[in-house]
Amino acid sequence: MLPLHTGARNLEDDCAVLEIGSETLVITHDSMAEGTHWLPGADPYDLAWKLVAVNLSDLAAKGADPIGVLLGYSLGQDDTRFLEGLRAILDDYGVPLLGGDTIKTEGPRTFGLTAIGCATNVPVPGRGGASEGDAIYVTGTLGRAMLGFEGDSGFLEAYNRPRPLLDAGRMLAPFVSAMMDISDGLLLDASRMAKASGMTFSLEANAIPVAAQDRFDDCVRWGDDYQLLFSAPVDATLPIKATRIGQVLSRGDEPVLLDSAPPGGSLGYEH
Amino acid sequence: MLPLHTGARNLEDDCAVLEIGSETLVITHDSMAEGTHWLPGADPYDLAWKLVAVNLSDLAAKGADPIGVLLGYSLGQDDTRFLEGLRAILDDYGVPLLGGDTIKTEGPRTFGLTAIGCATNVPVPGRGGASEGDAIYVTGTLGRAMLGFEGDSGFLEAYNRPRPLLDAGRMLAPFVSAMMDISDGLLLDASRMAKASGMTFSLEANAIPVAAQDRFDDCVRWGDDYQLLFSAPVDATLPIKATRIGQVLSRGDEPVLLDSAPPGGSLGYEH
Repeated sequence: MLPLHTGARNLEDDCAVLEIGSETLVITHDSMAEGTHWLPGADPYDLAWKLVAVNLSDLAAKGADPIGVLLGYSLGQDDTRFLEGLRAILDDYGVPLLGGDTIKTEGPRTFGLTAIGCATNVPVPGRGGASEGDAIYVTGTLGRAMLGFEGDSGFLEAYNRPRPLLDAGRMLAPFVSAMMDISDGLLLDASRMAKASGMTFSLEANAIPVAAQDRFDDCVRWGDDYQLLFSAPVDATLPIKATRIGQVLSRGDEPVLLDSAPPGGSLGYEH
Repeated sequence: MLPLHTGARNLEDDCAVLEIGSETLVITHDSMAEGTHWLPGADPYDLAWKLVAVNLSDLAAKGADPIGVLLGYSLGQDDTRFLEGLRAILDDYGVPLLGGDTIKTEGPRTFGLTAIGCATNVPVPGRGGASEGDAIYVTGTLGRAMLGFEGDSGFLEAYNRPRPLLDAGRMLAPFVSAMMDISDGLLLDASRMAKASGMTFSLEANAIPVAAQDRFDDCVRWGDDYQLLFSAPVDATLPIKATRIGQVLSRGDEPVLLDSAPPGGSLGYEH
């Protein structure tokens, strides 16, 4: 076993939580690799945007204010375009670069980013706090990134340049019992939250907002939307609009139920 | 231009420095890639050790106490051996894992590590504080990693499993005017510190401790020893043993002089 920091939350969360004096820091690191996370030919602007976005989205789910990011960058032939995308999202979200490393590599490239934020609400929301009887909510609409990935021109932006929900996360943090961003599909991420909480998440299909009703099964299994999934007491008055999609039950045989039955097939993007 | 955090020190230092309440954090990120930083066939145990060591060495040069590390890991066929090396150095230095990301990649692999430490001395030493008249020092002996790389059995450990000088860095921090670890060769790193300080570093060849006197020119240009290079007032009483190798002059035509002349050839490992 590796020696783990208590703030590592047993590596079962998207972020580490670090108490520094009277402040609480939230730290996350996500990597992206050519061939796994993008195909050759992708616009490096979008790659830079997405690399930052997925990490800021992890901070969003903790209700954290970004302090800065460190970049691990593999040099290539399109570095200028990457820097343009990097600057665009850092400017857009007002997040400065703290440092990092630039290296030469051979073959497919890998980019890494570490994002550091300051918690705005303590305790910092995790995956494990959902209680029996809580309502389950999701922000936004699911499946938009999938449609963009498939080439639907109305949704290209949703796939290529997702917008981390930092404001929503900060506003929700004081009200939620558990929260995470949906990166790997609603059903899979809901099952993770249910397991971490020792509960069963019972979802109602017709309540789940999807971008294409005829593709419902795909929309609830496809990731990359970076919406927030959270649980809250049923009587909580939420500060932002979100859709109630189910309720938390005591732990049964399945972590997730869809219309009272186990969802068939794969739950989402396993990687 | 990218938006930079003031703590990024204009990206001219090895670490970012972050004020969090009454504490000062020191953060660094270094990556390593197959083909650039190691050759296929290297022992993954050593790669893990070195990845952590080079980052902790950056913290050492700041006099920082490590809090934890985040790992960006590309899966391969030798993950168990990598984990053994990772555990060994984390246990050895009492540094816990905070988190990270594990991904599938294709082709040559890239590893990244973010190390976070707490400054034990403020102001945190940088590269830019050397003053005219200061003495220049180096810890240990240079060229040991080079000999190990070349296969000398007495120095394999120096190359494969360098030991970050955390204790030395913490003890020295209150006494130094500038400090950095030597990762790319004494002459090159001394020139960087001289430039950052707006000074000329005048070094005396016969004072520089090298592992092979007949390879002097290589020993002062080869990196990977991770010894500490620092400047301090001439009358400072140092808390640990270090070798005085020169003095800081006002800025002349060259950032580094060796026996009063510009060193010929490449100064070190440019990458």
